[in-house]
Amino acid sequence: MIQKLTETERNAGLQELKDWQPSAGRDAIRRAFKFRNFSEAWGFMNRVALLAETQDHHPEWSNVYNRVEILLTTHDCDGLSERDLKLARAIDRLLA
Amino acid sequence: MIQKLTETERNAGLQELKDWQPSAGRDAIRRAFKFRNFSEAWGFMNRVALLAETQDHHPEWSNVYNRVEILLTTHDCDGLSERDLKLARAIDRLLA
Repeated sequence: MIQKLTETERNAGLQELKDWQPSAGRDAIRRAFKFRNFSEAWGFMNRVALLAETQDHHPEWSNVYNRVEILLTTHDCDGLSERDLKLARAIDRLLA
Repeated sequence: MIQKLTETERNAGLQELKDWQPSAGRDAIRRAFKFRNFSEAWGFMNRVALLAETQDHHPEWSNVYNRVEILLTTHDCDGLSERDLKLARAIDRLLA
């Protein structure tokens, strides 16, 4: 059973993941990405898709040409969990 | 210069593309897709990405696990054009 993050864990997570923002109205985090073109955006999304499948934790995300928006939350606990922080860190590492 | 569809062309297009709906509040069409799992949804999205790049016409789209939503509109003419109908037909053929 996945547990929601406590308030302390949530704050620590958000402090660590500086490029992610809390999502308005949902217990979730989001980050927007901009690439040079669709090809680059899609390459990135494919790498995130592999991470998601490997971690068995999938984002809510959208794409418009060179822009990608990723929202992470955990449906099983109806809020933010350690799974979201783990996936966010792995996504950040792709771009590091 | 890309031209917006006339009212007649728009209606004919929507009649032909039975699985696509006009999008509320935008001159666009949308279709929702549901697959068995993320792997299937992502396989489909990759095929659509190749169509989009080949046609140099890209969707606004989102994915949540096994669900995909695609919205088509043409930014260059700020509305629905023949490019959208062409891409919609090609997407439909992937699933035929």
